[in-house]
Amino acid sequence: MIKRIINNLLTILLFSVIMVNGQNKLSETYNLMPWPKEIKENNNKVYINEDFTVSINNKEGRVHGAAIKFIRRLTNRTGVFVKEGFPFLNKKNATIKITFNKVADIQLNVDESYEVLVTGKQVEILAKTDVGAIRGLETVLQLIRYNENSFYVGGVTIKDSPRFIWRGLMIDVARHYQPLSVLKRNLDAMASMKMNVFHWHLSDDQGFRVESKVFPKLHELGSDGQYYTHENIKDIVSYANKLGIRVVPEIDVPGHATAILTAYPELGSKKGYDYKIERFSGVFHPTLNPINPEVYVFLDKLFAEITPLFPDNYFHIGGDENEGKHWDENHEVQKFKKKEGLNSNHDLQTFFNIKLQEILKKYNKKLMGWDEIMTKDMPKTAIIHSWRGVNEGFKNGTLTEAVKNGYQAVLSNDYYIDRMQSVEHHYLFDPAGNGKLTKEEEKRVLGGEVTMWSELVTSLTIDSRIWPRTAAIAERFWSVKEVKNLENMRKRLRPISLQLEELGISHFKNRDVILRNITKSNDISSLKVLTGVYEPVEIYTRNKGGTEYKSFSPFTLFADACFADAIDGYNFKKTMNSYLKRPSVSKKKELINYFNKWIKGYNDFLKLQSNPNTGLIKNHYKKLKELSLVCVEVLNGKKITKKVKKEVNECVKVLKEPLVDTELVVLPVIEKFLNE
Amino acid sequence: MIKRIINNLLTILLFSVIMVNGQNKLSETYNLMPWPKEIKENNNKVYINEDFTVSINNKEGRVHGAAIKFIRRLTNRTGVFVKEGFPFLNKKNATIKITFNKVADIQLNVDESYEVLVTGKQVEILAKTDVGAIRGLETVLQLIRYNENSFYVGGVTIKDSPRFIWRGLMIDVARHYQPLSVLKRNLDAMASMKMNVFHWHLSDDQGFRVESKVFPKLHELGSDGQYYTHENIKDIVSYANKLGIRVVPEIDVPGHATAILTAYPELGSKKGYDYKIERFSGVFHPTLNPINPEVYVFLDKLFAEITPLFPDNYFHIGGDENEGKHWDENHEVQKFKKKEGLNSNHDLQTFFNIKLQEILKKYNKKLMGWDEIMTKDMPKTAIIHSWRGVNEGFKNGTLTEAVKNGYQAVLSNDYYIDRMQSVEHHYLFDPAGNGKLTKEEEKRVLGGEVTMWSELVTSLTIDSRIWPRTAAIAERFWSVKEVKNLENMRKRLRPISLQLEELGISHFKNRDVILRNITKSNDISSLKVLTGVYEPVEIYTRNKGGTEYKSFSPFTLFADACFADAIDGYNFKKTMNSYLKRPSVSKKKELINYFNKWIKGYNDFLKLQSNPNTGLIKNHYKKLKELSLVCVEVLNGKKITKKVKKEVNECVKVLKEPLVDTELVVLPVIEKFLNE
Repeated sequence: MIKRIINNLLTILLFSVIMVNGQNKLSETYNLMPWPKEIKENNNKVYINEDFTVSINNKEGRVHGAAIKFIRRLTNRTGVFVKEGFPFLNKKNATIKITFNKVADIQLNVDESYEVLVTGKQVEILAKTDVGAIRGLETVLQLIRYNENSFYVGGVTIKDSPRFIWRGLMIDVARHYQPLSVLKRNLDAMASMKMNVFHWHLSDDQGFRVESKVFPKLHELGSDGQYYTHENIKDIVSYANKLGIRVVPEIDVPGHATAILTAYPELGSKKGYDYKIERFSGVFHPTLNPINPEVYVFLDKLFAEITPLFPDNYFHIGGDENEGKHWDENHEVQKFKKKEGLNSNHDLQTFFNIKLQEILKKYNKKLMGWDEIMTKDMPKTAIIHSWRGVNEGFKNGTLTEAVKNGYQAVLSNDYYIDRMQSVEHHYLFDPAGNGKLTKEEEKRVLGGEVTMWSELVTSLTIDSRIWPRTAAIAERFWSVKEVKNLENMRKRLRPISLQLEELGISHFKNRDVILRNITKSNDISSLKVLTGVYEPVEIYTRNKGGTEYKSFSPFTLFADACFADAIDGYNFKKTMNSYLKRPSVSKKKELINYFNKWIKGYNDFLKLQSNPNTGLIKNHYKKLKELSLVCVEVLNGKKITKKVKKEVNECVKVLKEPLVDTELVVLPVIEKFLNE
Repeated sequence: MIKRIINNLLTILLFSVIMVNGQNKLSETYNLMPWPKEIKENNNKVYINEDFTVSINNKEGRVHGAAIKFIRRLTNRTGVFVKEGFPFLNKKNATIKITFNKVADIQLNVDESYEVLVTGKQVEILAKTDVGAIRGLETVLQLIRYNENSFYVGGVTIKDSPRFIWRGLMIDVARHYQPLSVLKRNLDAMASMKMNVFHWHLSDDQGFRVESKVFPKLHELGSDGQYYTHENIKDIVSYANKLGIRVVPEIDVPGHATAILTAYPELGSKKGYDYKIERFSGVFHPTLNPINPEVYVFLDKLFAEITPLFPDNYFHIGGDENEGKHWDENHEVQKFKKKEGLNSNHDLQTFFNIKLQEILKKYNKKLMGWDEIMTKDMPKTAIIHSWRGVNEGFKNGTLTEAVKNGYQAVLSNDYYIDRMQSVEHHYLFDPAGNGKLTKEEEKRVLGGEVTMWSELVTSLTIDSRIWPRTAAIAERFWSVKEVKNLENMRKRLRPISLQLEELGISHFKNRDVILRNITKSNDISSLKVLTGVYEPVEIYTRNKGGTEYKSFSPFTLFADACFADAIDGYNFKKTMNSYLKRPSVSKKKELINYFNKWIKGYNDFLKLQSNPNTGLIKNHYKKLKELSLVCVEVLNGKKITKKVKKEVNECVKVLKEPLVDTELVVLPVIEKFLNE
């Protein structure tokens, strides 16, 4: 009896904790992501069988096409042979009944709210716009559950709408070009996470990726033949539009302009400089010459050509990381600065930006730029894209500064997924910052953008860098700020991550492609074991100084097969930490299983035919095995002798070294264990 | 001493056997596919290190681009960080030095010959045309070998050229539309196997896949929105051209025309018929009306629009499987036949074809069609595409008939890879048939074409149906006819199959995607075990009558994760057959390992959370486990009791039933074993 009372108390306590964290208890049952604003459970269930149908109230707009894709995903996921493969118009008793009022114009501030009502035999989706309805369809796909005999939609009532209106993903296609198919599957995945802005970073030192009919040398000399034709761009914009995703293009100027200047060196700030497409990574000096009137003629003509391809009202002009070295070296530029009373290169860049803003205005575009553009003369209509925070020397981050200055702003600092940090790191950052904003200021925070810089990714690996972490960040942008239980987020992220494969996201499958390439074999089990506990080194430890890798270096290495948040690593650390606090037989058994997995992994690894790439891994793996053997003995109560201690130290020394740009994430906790 | 003599004799004998089979002994060392015409070994080795460079003698043509792709593949495969990522022009001491004489015009009869000479420190590629040179580059990629410390190009001298000038792959994009990315990666894979014709089956009852500006309803009403724009087509044609691949388009008329008639029913043979895009598979009745002059106006305008998109001299007009049922039902058609003295529907189709041929001639296209077009009035300039052989009632096959009639012909009968038969089945068929052709007749055999009909494939599974079997068939088309050792082909095919992943071919990776979808888990090891011994049911056992599957049915079933030539199945059968002939301890051990794999597989399978799709597999797997347990006991010398015998029969009964459209390929040999 007392036990029951305690149990009940514990349950209540558990729920309270969940409530304290602002997390609805249904998030233990339903794997929705992003978590909806309001959700209630009911006793209904709608089964998915061959009679499944979808009805819409209007063939115009985005829902018809989205419903077809929805049916394909549903049948593929469940294996159910539906009789009707296309949606009906106004079919009363359809399994899924969708009603929306109007077709949205895809610009900032689309109404994306929707409701899902699971009644007796029907799932109803209600929305003001077609975009809201397709957001609802994604929710319904996440509501599909199963038992041994059936798939069904769980009984819930949902009222949902986003917290922020700007929920973006930036993909840098300059450092490594990405084919249309990569962009399309990522747009699909974005839509599945209710993201609504694709920021297309189209030019940089390493490439200018837009076909220009007016300045053909741009793509001919500035892209290595890897660029998007006008037709390609229209294709992507239209594809995104159907998903309710805006496309904000970026042409980065005046810095990050090596590719442009490779094509048109006469526009550069340093006469006679040998501009060549950059193969390394970093911040480089080639910069447009702000005092050359031809530069503005060029930009005017270029924007006249390019802006009509992008129907969005905003155009991103970059503006970041111009150190002005070539300006300093240019005598004419210096004279000009003096004459115009421009005290710094920053002032000179403002001069440039204002001119650019006027050009964009001609083509009905509002300007957006990285936070360096925020200077006193920049009009408040510009959107400030904040990428600098504490680590870059801005105590409160540039976002806070921007909104306090009256600008609208979008946050990307903290969402740099190319840094290969844990999902938790990104998930806990709130776009509206530390709570020091007034209500008015907070309103000016439009949302956030995940940035996928592509120095170290190719089309083979980009998905595994973007996903699944971006799904969690998308939740940060959509859901109320109180949704922040890490354990629960991780629990929901696992099935969500698997479901991303439906859309072609290749994080799991391309890991295996890389491992087969490393082993030259179909038997990759031993290396897969390693990817469970090795993660790519974080932040910019990989590619130190930007010169370890060139853009054409191989990205088929062991590091490229590894993910942030290595799954065994996470679970092992949790178990070990818990064991160290309070040992138990079951935890001990679990830990021994891990160690045995690594021991067996090494033994299997030895059966592979050696090649230079498996050779790089061998010694590390051997030491992991040796360390594991010791750990099993210690767990079984054996004392460590001096001799063994020495061996352990030797192992740890080797294992502390990066393994082909990865690190063994369980090492610190194993050291802790052995030192206790 | 005697032992040595015997060994030597054995070696000589072995070589003789190989020579009897016409197979060069180097095919045991080098995994080249297709096997080259002449190859000799030397003692040179060219190592691949950071100083690796490529030089070409001419930037014009296809080699420059191909060399860049070559370098990317080489570095990705080896992990070597080369300093130079782009080819040089006329660099004397480059690692790979390519010389060609002229840029080819991609039409029938391009010179594709090349030589590869591995000298002291250099690999030389010599060719008459740029296409020959890129064929040579593919050979060099296959020559890359490795040891523990390095990758290197093995020392050989190769002189190579194709046996047939038509080495094609047909992809049916009508039954299931295929995105550009799927076509592109398959074009890359084709080029890696030195194939040179992409036959694009663009229209059928299930879809018309070409945008028409003249008859927009064709793509608007006939494609479910899944079609190729003119830009898309130009993109594919240009992509193929760079690979030295011709694109031969097919618009299938007068039958297989449901999609056309869905758009323009007035062109059909049956008035008032409700034409609707077909969702099932099979032969259907909708047919263009050959006595309606508007049909020819339509075709003339359509070809005027479409033919310029395809620079190839040949245009495929289908012409197959028109049973003429709607003609029989049309009174006017019957009257016309009488009036014109056309005795059969076949004669009427000839009447149609001749008119079509005249239209195509206007647009400078020569006609190609399925073998039904071969009638007495068909001009000898037409190419006959032979799809009917013994099984379709043609004792010698229509190819023999065609070349004896003076036509040039291409063979596809025997290369229907959608039938999911073993690679051996296709590999052993010779395009020039049974040797009953005269030399002149054999000259008219242009080559062969693999046909990938897409009733049962989607973009998720198409690669695993095409590859790796098509690589072996490509060898049949390229190599001399004496290359036909099956064991050796299988040995070479394994690494070739893995290397196809470099080009994005998804046969392995999408198998795993499907298994993860079935299990809803990342742990697919137990189902992977099954895919080792289960193969999709062959020929048209799957989708009996064409009505089990609709085009929108799920193709994410267990059958879709299985391949022809299941690897464990093949090896097990070989070992078991060998054991039955001559038992040995090592063979017994090997067999027991297989049985234990299946036993363990089932036990692991039970750990998965059940869902309706794993539920379909469960009982089969259980019986396989039970049968395996018995087999292990029998192998260990235990006698089968009556009771066990009964259990075995029960198992066999279940296992004989198809498992989600697959069959257990080891069952017959296990039965044989248990019955002995």
